[in-house]
Amino acid sequence: MNHFINELMDYRTALFNTDFLLTWDHSDDEIHAVLTVAGCLKELHCQGKSCRVFDTGLAISIFRDNSTRTRFSFASAANALGLGVSELDEVKSHIAHGETVRETATMISFLAEVIGIRDDMYLGEGNRYMREVAAAVEEGHARGVLHQRPSVINLQCDIDHPTQTLADLMQLKAQFGSLESLRGRKIAMTWAYSPSYGKPLSVPQGIIGLMTRFGMDVSLAHPEGYELIPDVVERAREQARMSGGSLTVSNSMEEAFAAADIVYPKSWAPFHVMQKRTGLLQKGDRPGLAELERQCLVENARHLSWECDEKKMAATKGGKALYMHCLPADISGVSCKEGEVAASVFDRYRDLLYREAGYKPYVIAAMIFLSKVKQPMDRLMRLLEAGRPRVF
Amino acid sequence: MNHFINELMDYRTALFNTDFLLTWDHSDDEIHAVLTVAGCLKELHCQGKSCRVFDTGLAISIFRDNSTRTRFSFASAANALGLGVSELDEVKSHIAHGETVRETATMISFLAEVIGIRDDMYLGEGNRYMREVAAAVEEGHARGVLHQRPSVINLQCDIDHPTQTLADLMQLKAQFGSLESLRGRKIAMTWAYSPSYGKPLSVPQGIIGLMTRFGMDVSLAHPEGYELIPDVVERAREQARMSGGSLTVSNSMEEAFAAADIVYPKSWAPFHVMQKRTGLLQKGDRPGLAELERQCLVENARHLSWECDEKKMAATKGGKALYMHCLPADISGVSCKEGEVAASVFDRYRDLLYREAGYKPYVIAAMIFLSKVKQPMDRLMRLLEAGRPRVF
Amino acid sequence: MNHFINELMDYRTALFNTDFLLTWDHSDDEIHAVLTVAGCLKELHCQGKSCRVFDTGLAISIFRDNSTRTRFSFASAANALGLGVSELDEVKSHIAHGETVRETATMISFLAEVIGIRDDMYLGEGNRYMREVAAAVEEGHARGVLHQRPSVINLQCDIDHPTQTLADLMQLKAQFGSLESLRGRKIAMTWAYSPSYGKPLSVPQGIIGLMTRFGMDVSLAHPEGYELIPDVVERAREQARMSGGSLTVSNSMEEAFAAADIVYPKSWAPFHVMQKRTGLLQKGDRPGLAELERQCLVENARHLSWECDEKKMAATKGGKALYMHCLPADISGVSCKEGEVAASVFDRYRDLLYREAGYKPYVIAAMIFLSKVKQPMDRLMRLLEAGRPRVF
Repeated sequence: MNHFINELMDYRTALFNTDFLLTWDHSDDEIHAVLTVAGCLKELHCQGKSCRVFDTGLAISIFRDNSTRTRFSFASAANALGLGVSELDEVKSHIAHGETVRETATMISFLAEVIGIRDDMYLGEGNRYMREVAAAVEEGHARGVLHQRPSVINLQCDIDHPTQTLADLMQLKAQFGSLESLRGRKIAMTWAYSPSYGKPLSVPQGIIGLMTRFGMDVSLAHPEGYELIPDVVERAREQARMSGGSLTVSNSMEEAFAAADIVYPKSWAPFHVMQKRTGLLQKGDRPGLAELERQCLVENARHLSWECDEKKMAATKGGKALYMHCLPADISGVSCKEGEVAASVFDRYRDLLYREAGYKPYVIAAMIFLSKVKQPMDRLMRLLEAGRPRVF
Repeated sequence: MNHFINELMDYRTALFNTDFLLTWDHSDDEIHAVLTVAGCLKELHCQGKSCRVFDTGLAISIFRDNSTRTRFSFASAANALGLGVSELDEVKSHIAHGETVRETATMISFLAEVIGIRDDMYLGEGNRYMREVAAAVEEGHARGVLHQRPSVINLQCDIDHPTQTLADLMQLKAQFGSLESLRGRKIAMTWAYSPSYGKPLSVPQGIIGLMTRFGMDVSLAHPEGYELIPDVVERAREQARMSGGSLTVSNSMEEAFAAADIVYPKSWAPFHVMQKRTGLLQKGDRPGLAELERQCLVENARHLSWECDEKKMAATKGGKALYMHCLPADISGVSCKEGEVAASVFDRYRDLLYREAGYKPYVIAAMIFLSKVKQPMDRLMRLLEAGRPRVF
Repeated sequence: MNHFINELMDYRTALFNTDFLLTWDHSDDEIHAVLTVAGCLKELHCQGKSCRVFDTGLAISIFRDNSTRTRFSFASAANALGLGVSELDEVKSHIAHGETVRETATMISFLAEVIGIRDDMYLGEGNRYMREVAAAVEEGHARGVLHQRPSVINLQCDIDHPTQTLADLMQLKAQFGSLESLRGRKIAMTWAYSPSYGKPLSVPQGIIGLMTRFGMDVSLAHPEGYELIPDVVERAREQARMSGGSLTVSNSMEEAFAAADIVYPKSWAPFHVMQKRTGLLQKGDRPGLAELERQCLVENARHLSWECDEKKMAATKGGKALYMHCLPADISGVSCKEGEVAASVFDRYRDLLYREAGYKPYVIAAMIFLSKVKQPMDRLMRLLEAGRPRVF
């Protein structure tokens, strides 16, 4: 596994004692380092070896909406490194800010190593909340209130979903051999029909915000009215230009799928609806929210044809693009009458989708590792050498 | 403690990387091995020695109804072996199956060592759900999605309650000196009156399904209409025949108690009521459920005399049969007006009942140990030799 | 850090295998020992060293009302010592007693090292419940049901809040140099206005019950009708007499603040209201509870002037008394329209308040340490010598 170490030696990173909130906050080397460390920890774990680098320590998770998979990914990552997990459940109707956030963040952080936050419900709120928590612990550390500064990790916000998209990137690296070989590949990030409403924008935004950095031809497609946050699209366009790739936006799933190497069809709510929703939530306007949901489902239903079916898959490169999804998917005839993907397509890719999800705990572990271990290369080397078994 | 090792050497077991769902899925040697390892871990713990065999690792518990005692038994067992615990609370009205179960089971299992499940509410559902989870992780492992296969442990289902009945068996072993000396003993597994409704059938079924394997005379008694699942009774009858014991079924608590060495009086809901209840739950028929409960309580009240009182205890062997219960018991005049057991009887046996419950964490630990440690004998020997203190 | 050891050598303590329920249950030496061990563990942690003394082991927390801060303090303390945490959430309307408490306490304690309990909602209930749990595990241990006896730690009850007040005392020790230098200092423990209702009496009672032991002049002030439990006031008065300090009780915030070295202005509900409330809760009298709350808020509103504002702070010793609070505070214009403290006062002391809170995890860790480690001095010495890093 020394290739991991060799790769890691090449990267200049400044991840120690920092947060991971958006992939585009971080340099290419830092992205590479996360993937390399994640890969190394995965290989250690698969070989039955210990990844433990903490004697004791607390990992805190804050879930502002329900989550099973992310909860377990975070708990798995923390546990593998030797941390205990304490969860703060904050499923709330109101949105705390200011003094309350500063104080609570400090109060729970006295002995904490890392804080993982999921807050994807309110446009304009999730990432902002994470930054408030990060600012609070940064200030607490600077003022001597906290003797150590817990790292804040974005487990999904209104803007990005970095632990998901980096797991997706690990999947691409594994499927195509290397990040370099992604250059010139076409990836279709498209909207897909779902009978449910209000799915976050973080995955499509995260995908275009990450994949445009690797020289890929990123094809974003959605029905009119289902736009993403304009700033993120702008950034992705700029990144594509810099990396020698491209970003094209269309209103045709067929156009996006045509000769694609990779397809990522997934439902999301329109940006403007999410904005209206945040306003209604803040006012506590229940009838308004119900009416908005009704309207949105009616609108959704106009786009039933945005399903990833066999016909569309056949039009991809060689008819066998890599199908990706963050799961759970709305599978037509299985989890709903009509949904994001045909059952036969999903079935064919199930193992690959599960593998894709399986990278996430290691991505989270790598983020913790790189933000808390001062000499990550040296430490990884010693883990490899020690080869301490996980089950004695 | 070397006698534990000597005992263990005699058993042929195939428990590595398997599940523990029903006691009758396992050979006599495997049952013996669980008891022996549980006893050894208990003795280590009592001596203040470490039972730790995991450097890191995740134990997942899935509770599909509320539970305090089982929750702590599982957490205690996992912790003693060095595992962290993540709980998945799934108190739900609907019953998930198929794709959802397969996917969720896989998603939470990437780094998991063991999954403990309690699902005893719906007849025909609990054990089936456990088997779905087990099949999902088995398939995930076979297809390379999971690099390790978490063991599934039944923490109580609609059919059996193996961690309880094996704790009960440890109690019998301790009270009567050995499993061999149980041969020819009479155990009365009887229904008892309770003012509550809908208690699971898993304990009486588990008791007759386990105790008939040791040459005991098992006397099952309940009012007419309170039958158990016929298949389980049939299996118990066959096992009794094979082991040289007997199974008799009657509608008289007095007949069952007569000259019994052991009595286990406990309320349960009739099989046919539980079947009807599952149907109503699946249809979401709330008025139907309320009416069923009303009828069932009226029926229960016709059997107030099924109380374990002093008079009935006096008729047992020497007037001092061992009184058993899985707790909590409905104690007449204490936890309810009229219940399963007279307060004076319960009081006299309280310490023994608590000891009985105290075996459960070690039974669970033994199941985990035997399913995850490749060379259990060797490993136990090393734990004994190391004698590492739990508090340094 | 050897000064910690030297200090500790001077104390005669009998904390091994005991509970921590009220500070006044414990000798001065024991109070000193808790502070010294807490200080030593804090310094170890700040230096990045391991405080781990448990190989494995379970810390149980029972929260009978919602809590985030105390929950994380307890989890942090347990984790730092090497314990896993299992939480028992018991937010309930009814109050369990007797057989149920005895049995549940025993059932969860088979492998437990410590039980932390927060139960501050019902006057006459919280501390009583803790004593029931302690009696249950004591009896269980004496009768051989539990091979080890978990220590019970009061995380806030209706009478005292020892982990808070000992954290407060550590703050005073740090600010004034030593416990000895507190002699002759004036501390004002005063009521303050809050728009909320039903805050527990445990902090003011705990403060007068602890600070009167150090030769301080304790000035308790509250509006008429907001009396504390008479027994506690009586005990504080007696302690003040013994320690050469004083306890004065008045109905004037100004009088209490005059020339004070330390001020602790904090809202609480009147004793007689809390008594009435417990009665109504036990009867389940919802309209009665609503009416009591209404009356109490009306009564509160008559005392809006009891705010810790700049004018009152100016009258303290040199205009710069140490402002203390257990947090969260009701800050005027921030968390409420009119509250316990002016925003400018709170702002000036924020860092100090956060530091004050930051001692609590170490106080809890010290209580666990002293109740579970047989030779605490020797053990601390070895922790210092080992200097094992928390992050490898």
